[in-house]
Amino acid sequence: MRLLFLGDVVGRSGRAAVVNRLPGLVERFGLDFVVVNGENSAGGFGLTEEILTDLLDAGADVVTTGNHAFDQREALVFAERQPRFLRPANFPSGTPGRGANLYPARNGARILVVNVMGRVFMDALDDPFAAVEREVAACPLGEQADAIIVDFHAEATSEKQAVAHFLDGRVTLVVGTHTHVPTSDHRVLPGGTAYQSDAGMCGDYDSVLGMEKDEPVRRFLTKIPSGRFSPAGGEATLCGIAVEVDESSGLAVAVAPLSIGGVLEERLPPFWA
Amino acid sequence: MRLLFLGDVVGRSGRAAVVNRLPGLVERFGLDFVVVNGENSAGGFGLTEEILTDLLDAGADVVTTGNHAFDQREALVFAERQPRFLRPANFPSGTPGRGANLYPARNGARILVVNVMGRVFMDALDDPFAAVEREVAACPLGEQADAIIVDFHAEATSEKQAVAHFLDGRVTLVVGTHTHVPTSDHRVLPGGTAYQSDAGMCGDYDSVLGMEKDEPVRRFLTKIPSGRFSPAGGEATLCGIAVEVDESSGLAVAVAPLSIGGVLEERLPPFWA
Amino acid sequence: MRLLFLGDVVGRSGRAAVVNRLPGLVERFGLDFVVVNGENSAGGFGLTEEILTDLLDAGADVVTTGNHAFDQREALVFAERQPRFLRPANFPSGTPGRGANLYPARNGARILVVNVMGRVFMDALDDPFAAVEREVAACPLGEQADAIIVDFHAEATSEKQAVAHFLDGRVTLVVGTHTHVPTSDHRVLPGGTAYQSDAGMCGDYDSVLGMEKDEPVRRFLTKIPSGRFSPAGGEATLCGIAVEVDESSGLAVAVAPLSIGGVLEERLPPFWA
Amino acid sequence: MRLLFLGDVVGRSGRAAVVNRLPGLVERFGLDFVVVNGENSAGGFGLTEEILTDLLDAGADVVTTGNHAFDQREALVFAERQPRFLRPANFPSGTPGRGANLYPARNGARILVVNVMGRVFMDALDDPFAAVEREVAACPLGEQADAIIVDFHAEATSEKQAVAHFLDGRVTLVVGTHTHVPTSDHRVLPGGTAYQSDAGMCGDYDSVLGMEKDEPVRRFLTKIPSGRFSPAGGEATLCGIAVEVDESSGLAVAVAPLSIGGVLEERLPPFWA
Ligand SMILES: [Fe+2]
Ligand SMILES: [Fe+2]
Ligand SMILES: [Fe+2]
Ligand SMILES: [Fe+2]
Ligand SMILES: [Fe+2]
Ligand SMILES: [Fe+2]
Ligand SMILES: [Fe+2]
Ligand SMILES: [Fe+2]
Repeated sequence: MRLLFLGDVVGRSGRAAVVNRLPGLVERFGLDFVVVNGENSAGGFGLTEEILTDLLDAGADVVTTGNHAFDQREALVFAERQPRFLRPANFPSGTPGRGANLYPARNGARILVVNVMGRVFMDALDDPFAAVEREVAACPLGEQADAIIVDFHAEATSEKQAVAHFLDGRVTLVVGTHTHVPTSDHRVLPGGTAYQSDAGMCGDYDSVLGMEKDEPVRRFLTKIPSGRFSPAGGEATLCGIAVEVDESSGLAVAVAPLSIGGVLEERLPPFWA
Repeated sequence: MRLLFLGDVVGRSGRAAVVNRLPGLVERFGLDFVVVNGENSAGGFGLTEEILTDLLDAGADVVTTGNHAFDQREALVFAERQPRFLRPANFPSGTPGRGANLYPARNGARILVVNVMGRVFMDALDDPFAAVEREVAACPLGEQADAIIVDFHAEATSEKQAVAHFLDGRVTLVVGTHTHVPTSDHRVLPGGTAYQSDAGMCGDYDSVLGMEKDEPVRRFLTKIPSGRFSPAGGEATLCGIAVEVDESSGLAVAVAPLSIGGVLEERLPPFWA
Repeated sequence: MRLLFLGDVVGRSGRAAVVNRLPGLVERFGLDFVVVNGENSAGGFGLTEEILTDLLDAGADVVTTGNHAFDQREALVFAERQPRFLRPANFPSGTPGRGANLYPARNGARILVVNVMGRVFMDALDDPFAAVEREVAACPLGEQADAIIVDFHAEATSEKQAVAHFLDGRVTLVVGTHTHVPTSDHRVLPGGTAYQSDAGMCGDYDSVLGMEKDEPVRRFLTKIPSGRFSPAGGEATLCGIAVEVDESSGLAVAVAPLSIGGVLEERLPPFWA
Repeated sequence: MRLLFLGDVVGRSGRAAVVNRLPGLVERFGLDFVVVNGENSAGGFGLTEEILTDLLDAGADVVTTGNHAFDQREALVFAERQPRFLRPANFPSGTPGRGANLYPARNGARILVVNVMGRVFMDALDDPFAAVEREVAACPLGEQADAIIVDFHAEATSEKQAVAHFLDGRVTLVVGTHTHVPTSDHRVLPGGTAYQSDAGMCGDYDSVLGMEKDEPVRRFLTKIPSGRFSPAGGEATLCGIAVEVDESSGLAVAVAPLSIGGVLEERLPPFWA
């Protein structure tokens, strides 16, 4: 079974990369299931229902988010009626929407996707380790779920690595999002869980986090807010991570980064060849 | 001119990777200048003068550090008499040692190395943008310096990218350290400066930041300190970044990650072939 | 009904103030119930079972804590067998001890004491608003509880004020601890809940947070750890807050700060006269 | 010599308290010099030139600020032409305006006022200890200055106490601002410097930090931004600290809090009687 996970989509340029390239990837490589983190797709801040629909139409089976989940306030409404939209599972109880859900893959497998947010250098939230434990316990790998994907939206590499070791052998993939930079520490952990600290963003890397760079640099220099942040408009790099899943165990056989377009080095999973 | 930068060396396993592999790399590929970040080489916390000497003997021309610079208190003493030891340039005035210095490369070039620490999610320090500006202005590329290497020891990708754009065209390389995870966003920026958000650590990646993983995971789960952190003992991956420098301008012609040994995917700079 | 709450006891000097002065206050003013925050009573870091017993013997009915609850590791053991010891209710599930409990006052009233920790500028913990809501809902004022005292151990005045307004009319007292400085914003809120942002510490104020001042000042100046923190040894000020409770409603009739000894201005609740 | 310092003025209600009460206080008690922190006087965020003028007309000799200094962007312009407006001295070099200045008091004395911002739990800024040291060294007490007032705008009580001990004997007053809650730890330190951790705000205390309380409470409960923050409209308490200065040494003879109006307990400096 072939999974693809794409990191934080930033602005128009990031959306274009997904909409233009994802349908071809799904078809050409026979992808069974695709998750896209869309938390920055509306001008860098959250996403609208129209953008959600565009990402789903392009081939995403699920759209995850993070700290920017509700930047567009309409998400407070559509979160409830869109089961393919996830927001972090450890948001306060009463928050609209879901933090985890079970979805059918194109090959008939049942995929549990969990979206959860770290706490180190992030907003104060309930324990992400307990939250993901609860979701996985309610729908274990090899029982109700044929594969489990955890989007751990977090800043600190320590917390990302810790949650991966905590889940190793119990889920298919733990992948970090939020830093907007792809890491190259992808590997299958000893217990069989695929891991990469960050998927990287789908956005223009000639930028600061996908945003036009002048204003962020100016803020670091002066501490005075001046202009507004707006997404950088150059060609986006589609960034993500591919996992080959053992269908009997639901664990990972292989994992590799994917990077297409824009200013980063091109990389395609060798096992897709 | 060929530069190599190796990220945070963690513990005995990380030191072994440097000591065993670096001399061969220097010789085989004719490296002109090597910088190693050694801030975690003594059991994960700082470094001793003996370890400093071992790293220099293995082929490092300069050893940079970061927030752990003075974890071994003897560094407060040897920082002054060891010109090849650097600590962040934006530490408070009165801190022992140097934050930047000019060194001769094996090909005769004069290399300015600047070690500076970011502030986002880090200790309170003086402005790193102002500090690096001061050092570069005092020894500009193409005048007193034939190449300039900036080790920006920081957590946040936003701050790393911002300082890189701020320096683009004025230094040879801006490379991040501190997260202990290599990123794959290496590229030459529009102005000619090579950049990678993090070099990654030289340490055992089957760990949390190079430390044996059980105790860090337990702390995330319980909030109760129990055992101590100790470096993971598995084979380290030597992680770093290689830059090919244009000798007339001092700017970067090419940049590529290096990753040898341990559990990460092997990568050698294609332009070393 | 007369309640007294004393803030964070720091070191030997703070303990002496409690042990020497509290018995006389209880007797002279006919105090019905006394809570003491003891999180710094053992050399500034946590408390031992012997110190706990000393504080209880001096007249404390309950000893609350905070982020330093388990600095003395024996607390992990005695937390279970000492029902008058509380640690924050929003510590991870599985943490030894209790976060809230119901106690008999000297006048026969049943007092619910809740210890909970804020999250702004503090460790990552589960939602304190939800935690305190849960405890109060399980034992409401005017039903199972005749008075409810909330020790909100937190840094930020915003979070302290918010939790007080959230609970106003449903508990007798919300008092902050942790900053080690008494505030003078004591008052009865519109709904009948007594409030003060911080009770202040029981410790020597000629200090930094009750610790001998030279080392903390040096750390601010140099960023280099050198000596150790040790409690300041001058005479402590006993700092706290007194509440006069309406016995029919369990709400507050009057509230006033108490400050005795040491370098701060002496203050006794006028309604104790 | 009689000094008065008033804490952060919040919104229309806070301004009204200053404008209505300060002229009478100056006249009735013969105040020689008045400093007002005005960083929240324009709807809670910064201040306009018109508001600055109103505060000066009411009797303020200097208006200090803090992290909100430039929330109203016109402050970037008037900061330069208004010598009685101060912003933190440790803002990046190139920031408009001044961080310290020498002013004549009504009795002819020369008063140095320094505004500086702490770094613990605050924005990243240059070292406040070094900044205030520089200003005091350039205009020492007993030489160019007859009194020195330091407004240390900071969150953490540890940093406030540390800077006070650092300056003890070299300045007349170190007073904290920013938490918007008055503390009752006012005293003259051993070296002769008057100190209080926080002056408190001039604003409506039936609020969260002077802002209408519903929206802040909702944000703590839900993590979802909804409405906007707006200043609470109830009667403000004028909060501050009064210092009696020894005119030969410039050090403090006595210090006492002042609190007039609104929901807090009324307090007038006993030495003004
Ligand atoms: Fe993002
Ligand atoms: Fe994010
Ligand atoms: Fe490191
Ligand atoms: Fe570091
Ligand atoms: Fe404490
Ligand atoms: Fe505490
Ligand atoms: Fe303020
Ligand atoms: Fe402020």
